Amino acid sequence: MYVGIDLGGTNIKAGVVTEDCKIIAWDQMPTGASRRDSEIIADMAVLAKRVTEKAGLALSDIKSVGIGSPGSCDNKNGMLIYANNLNFRNTPMRAEFQKHWDIPVYIENDANCAALGEFSYLNDPAIDHFIAITLGTGVGGGVIINKKLYSGFNGAAAEIGHFQVVMDGEPCTCGRKGCWESYASITGLIRMTKAKMAQCPDSKMHEFAQKEGKVSGRTAFDAAKAGDKAGKEVVDEYIKNVAEGLVSVINIFQPNKIVIGGAISKEGDYLLLPIREHVSKFVYSRDIPQTEISIAKLGNDAGLIGAAMLGK
Amino acid sequence: MYVGIDLGGTNIKAGVVTEDCKIIAWDQMPTGASRRDSEIIADMAVLAKRVTEKAGLALSDIKSVGIGSPGSCDNKNGMLIYANNLNFRNTPMRAEFQKHWDIPVYIENDANCAALGEFSYLNDPAIDHFIAITLGTGVGGGVIINKKLYSGFNGAAAEIGHFQVVMDGEPCTCGRKGCWESYASITGLIRMTKAKMAQCPDSKMHEFAQKEGKVSGRTAFDAAKAGDKAGKEVVDEYIKNVAEGLVSVINIFQPNKIVIGGAISKEGDYLLLPIREHVSKFVYSRDIPQTEISIAKLGNDAGLIGAAMLGK
Repeated sequence: MYVGIDLGGTNIKAGVVTEDCKIIAWDQMPTGASRRDSEIIADMAVLAKRVTEKAGLALSDIKSVGIGSPGSCDNKNGMLIYANNLNFRNTPMRAEFQKHWDIPVYIENDANCAALGEFSYLNDPAIDHFIAITLGTGVGGGVIINKKLYSGFNGAAAEIGHFQVVMDGEPCTCGRKGCWESYASITGLIRMTKAKMAQCPDSKMHEFAQKEGKVSGRTAFDAAKAGDKAGKEVVDEYIKNVAEGLVSVINIFQPNKIVIGGAISKEGDYLLLPIREHVSKFVYSRDIPQTEISIAKLGNDAGLIGAAMLGK
Repeated sequence: MYVGIDLGGTNIKAGVVTEDCKIIAWDQMPTGASRRDSEIIADMAVLAKRVTEKAGLALSDIKSVGIGSPGSCDNKNGMLIYANNLNFRNTPMRAEFQKHWDIPVYIENDANCAALGEFSYLNDPAIDHFIAITLGTGVGGGVIINKKLYSGFNGAAAEIGHFQVVMDGEPCTCGRKGCWESYASITGLIRMTKAKMAQCPDSKMHEFAQKEGKVSGRTAFDAAKAGDKAGKEVVDEYIKNVAEGLVSVINIFQPNKIVIGGAISKEGDYLLLPIREHVSKFVYSRDIPQTEISIAKLGNDAGLIGAAMLGK
C-alpha cells in the first residue's frame, strides 16, 4: 500500500493506493496556498495519516508517500524548487514531511505523476516509452522512457506544452510566444472561440455560452455537434493545433503510446478520431510501427495515483 | 578496437576506432547508390576489412562493426527499414554483412551515431542526458538518455528537425509545413539569404555570393561580419530560428549538454554566443541548473566514430 498526495493551488488531496492502482481511501482539505510551506506540509502529513486510518490500516502498512506538486521538483534531494502558485522556494519537502511521519517520501511534478499514474494503470509490459498529455488550463506532459519517468538532469524536463508551434505567436504564460500550450489548452480554445463568436453573431456558440453562463472549452464543441458551421471551424482549428503538436512529439519520442487527458479529453472519439487521422498523415516515419494515441483513463485521479506509484 | 562505417548517399567511409574515440585507419569508396543493397553491403565488408588491415590488425582484433546509415534503422533486428537516398527497403543489413564477415554488427541512424560519437568523445561521467544537433542541409538530431542512445519503440525517434516551429509555414521535405529543419538548416538559411538579397540590391551579400560563385550558408555570415546591415538581419533571424528551436528542445529534454554540429557550426562563437543569450532568456525553468550549449568537436568524423562506439 502507498499513499499518494496531490498538492494543488486550491486543494490537497490524499489517497491510499494499492499495488494495482486502486484508491481505497481518499480525503482532501483546502491548501491555503498563502500559508508558509512548513504549515502546508504539516497538513499534508495530517491528511496522509487520516486516509491511512480511513483505509483501516496502520502507518506501518504504508510503504511510502509520494507527493505530486506543481512546479520544479528535485526528487534526488527531496526538494520543491519552485511553484508559481505556492509560497515554496527551495523547500526541503521530504525532510519537512518526515518530521511528521518518518517514511520514504518521493516528490515529483504533478504532470509527471499523472503520466506515471496512467502508465502504471495500463500495466502493459509491452510498453517501454509512454507519454501523457493533459489538455487543461495549460498543456501538461509527462514522459516515461524505458518504463521510468524522465525528468532531465535537473528535474524540469517534459515541459511538453512549452515547445513553440507558432514563431512570434500568442504570448504564453512562460514568457515565450507561440508555445503549444497557447494553442492546444482550454485557455487557447476559449480565446479562439471568443474570436470566432465576435466574427459570427449568428453562430449557435452564443446560445451555448449563454446557457452555460460563460464561454468555455465546451462552447465550440457543443455548437459543432449541433451543426453550427462557425463552431465546427473552431473545433477543426483546435484539433489541428493539438494534432500538429502530437506529430512533433511523436517525431521526437516515438513512444509506444500517447494518452490525452484533461477536461477536453471528455470529448472522446469526437476529439480522438480526427486527431488520429491528422497524425497518421503527417508523422515523419509512416512505414514503420506507429504510436498508438488514446484517451487517458484515470481522469482527475491520475496525479494522485501516479504520486503513490513513485515508491513502487 | 572497433570498426565504424558511415554509409552515405555519395560515399561509404570506414575507420578503425580505439576505445577512446581515435581513428587509427581510414578509407572510403563511392557508394554507387543506385546499386542493389546486397552489392553495397558486400563493398562495406570489403572496406571494413581493408581499414583493419591498414591499421595493422587481424580481423580477430576487431570487437564489432557499427554501421551508421541514413533513414530508419531497426538495430534489434539488424534491419535498415528505409532510406530515401538508397535502394534499401527492409534490408537485413546485419545478416547480409555477416555473410562476408562473421562479427557482431550494430546498425543505427547516422544522426544518432553522430550524437553517440560526440557523447563518447566527451567521456564525461557527469553527463547522463545529451543531445547533438546537426545544422546541415537538413537538421539532424540524436538523443542520449541515461548514457544510451534513445531511438523510441520503433527505432525512428529523435527526428528533432521535424517538430513544427511555424504552423502552416515553409514546406518541409517530410511533407509537413513549418518544421524546424526548414528554418534552421543551411537550406533554410540560403532561402532567407536569397530573399533578403532580392530586397536589398546594395547588400554586400551580392559580392560575397559572386566571389563564391553561389549563395551559400556563408554568404550572410560573411556579409554580416563585414558590417553589412542586411546580412546581419539575415544572420539575426537565422540565429533566432536556431535558438527558439533549442529552447523547445531544452524544455522537453533538459539534457546536461547540447552540442551543435554541421557546416554552420564552423561559425563558432559568432553563432554560439547569441544562441546562448537567447536561450537563457526564454527557457522555461530559469532558477535551476541550465543545459550547457557548445559547438560539437568531431566534425565529419562524428558519425563514423559513433557507429564504431555502438559496440562498446
